[in-house]
Amino acid sequence: MNNGAARVLEALRRAGGGTCSGEILSQAEGVSRAQVWKHVEALRRDGYVIEAEPGEGYRLASVPDRLFPEEIQHGLATRWLARDIRYFDEIDSTNRLAFDLAREGVANGTSVIAEAQTAGRGRLGRSFFSPPCANLYTSIVLRPEALTTAAPAWILASAVGVADTIAEEVGSAAEVEIKWPNDVLLGGRKSCGILMELGAEATRVAFLVLGIGVNLNVDPATFPEEFRAQATSLAGFLGRPIDRISFARRLYENLEPTLEACTREGLRGILPRFEAHFRMQGRTVRIQDLEGQSRSGCVLGIDEEGALRIAPSDGGPEERVVAGDVTLEKERA
Amino acid sequence: MNNGAARVLEALRRAGGGTCSGEILSQAEGVSRAQVWKHVEALRRDGYVIEAEPGEGYRLASVPDRLFPEEIQHGLATRWLARDIRYFDEIDSTNRLAFDLAREGVANGTSVIAEAQTAGRGRLGRSFFSPPCANLYTSIVLRPEALTTAAPAWILASAVGVADTIAEEVGSAAEVEIKWPNDVLLGGRKSCGILMELGAEATRVAFLVLGIGVNLNVDPATFPEEFRAQATSLAGFLGRPIDRISFARRLYENLEPTLEACTREGLRGILPRFEAHFRMQGRTVRIQDLEGQSRSGCVLGIDEEGALRIAPSDGGPEERVVAGDVTLEKERA
Repeated sequence: MNNGAARVLEALRRAGGGTCSGEILSQAEGVSRAQVWKHVEALRRDGYVIEAEPGEGYRLASVPDRLFPEEIQHGLATRWLARDIRYFDEIDSTNRLAFDLAREGVANGTSVIAEAQTAGRGRLGRSFFSPPCANLYTSIVLRPEALTTAAPAWILASAVGVADTIAEEVGSAAEVEIKWPNDVLLGGRKSCGILMELGAEATRVAFLVLGIGVNLNVDPATFPEEFRAQATSLAGFLGRPIDRISFARRLYENLEPTLEACTREGLRGILPRFEAHFRMQGRTVRIQDLEGQSRSGCVLGIDEEGALRIAPSDGGPEERVVAGDVTLEKERA
Repeated sequence: MNNGAARVLEALRRAGGGTCSGEILSQAEGVSRAQVWKHVEALRRDGYVIEAEPGEGYRLASVPDRLFPEEIQHGLATRWLARDIRYFDEIDSTNRLAFDLAREGVANGTSVIAEAQTAGRGRLGRSFFSPPCANLYTSIVLRPEALTTAAPAWILASAVGVADTIAEEVGSAAEVEIKWPNDVLLGGRKSCGILMELGAEATRVAFLVLGIGVNLNVDPATFPEEFRAQATSLAGFLGRPIDRISFARRLYENLEPTLEACTREGLRGILPRFEAHFRMQGRTVRIQDLEGQSRSGCVLGIDEEGALRIAPSDGGPEERVVAGDVTLEKERA
């Protein structure tokens, strides 16, 4: 959206659903009435419904279901997060672009949003199902002063921010669970994936990229078959459509203080909130390590470094899991 | 260098300083005599001295002082390191390009070489003085299966490979010292800088980029004034020019088994060799941490995780330094 269109949109918003004359618009925005008309046409092409009342002016009747930066930033109560949003109809991967932008030196908090990803990525080289205009795919560039050893804390912080936002939307935290380290489950099914990538110089973080994909309005019946049984969307769970713009805004608003706590205090600053959403204690999990070895154990909890504490099923001594893939085993009847 | 020129060069080399007829060259390489002549001209433009003996053929009289991949790879005894070299007369930063190549998926061991860097980088955002055609600037892409916490081992491994190669050139290890974590000193002055950058997914290394700059033939008098007192080159130290091609070849050959040991056994696999070049025990150092705080202490050694063990000068308990900047304090008389 160009600046002129954004200013006209802002003026229509200030009218609060009322009518705004072309005369007033052109005076307030310092452009000709012909230009006002041009900007209104551009907004309509973007999906804004703008009614023209003969002799009275223009009225903003509805906004499109698009994650336009102007919509998200309208009333966004953050100080540094998502103050710069790069928006795309379609992109290969929001993380790929955010990583490029981070290397080019964009500011802390710069965010990428795409309506669709053609090569959305998940952890361990997996793909992330990213159909258009239904969900939220965003990647955030962070520049904390931190050692790479501290970086996993930001994954847990992101999961907390997402879980809080989903719990607000659902109106209850009871059905929301963080599956360590980086999935958020809703009613026991995956509703969000988080992929953190980082660039570092030796032991020092140069930047982090937090990729967050939340299934909002996608119809669970359209999931690829291999995900269908384990995945859901907020709309699928609640049986009503989700306002994606408002969800994105609240997500950034919830993430900002969580990420700040992480920068200030490290994992200690967010662990209590992580544990509030953590329900894996006592459950049996199967762990696949980097070498492809698999073993099972019972979850004891999270330690002060964010690692999963496991009592191995073979009776061996307690283990810490810092990486690898964790699957919840089926509950016994 | 195109493939045809590379094949003609290889045939001239096989003649071992003898003459090779244009007829034989054209038959062996399957190209016309006119093409042989074209390739010889191209090689001459690259600085190869190729003498034409009337009625007898061509003779390779000398090779240019350029780090052409064909020169380095001629007789290179590595299996995977520097089998793919990307060569540039000039580049902004070999690390920048190697990082880009790593993200694009190039193979383990792919190396970048440039004769000059216009924006050569050192640690902590500093610049690295990179004059043309005098030194060795190379960046290596590695893809170990490793956690980010293990990554610092590769910095120490690189320092070992460089120190071994410099010791071979100097003919003695006595004047060669590794200044923890990543400088190699010759006669007490910096002769090499190493900059490791990494890309990671959460706790898992996606790739490492090892940037190595060795001062070979640069005249120490031309160093920027702020480095001059602390820096040297091999030629400055030895008083004779260094064969850059042969140095580069031996560096890759020394690095390959060191990096393999690191991948196989982690830091444990290289620590004894690191300690052989480590002479900081008992010396007083000043440490600047990430927050810019500075303190001094006496070096006790290296621990099993590669951290510097320090006895603080203020009498406090032993500390471990994993990052930050370390300066050797002047020796007491």
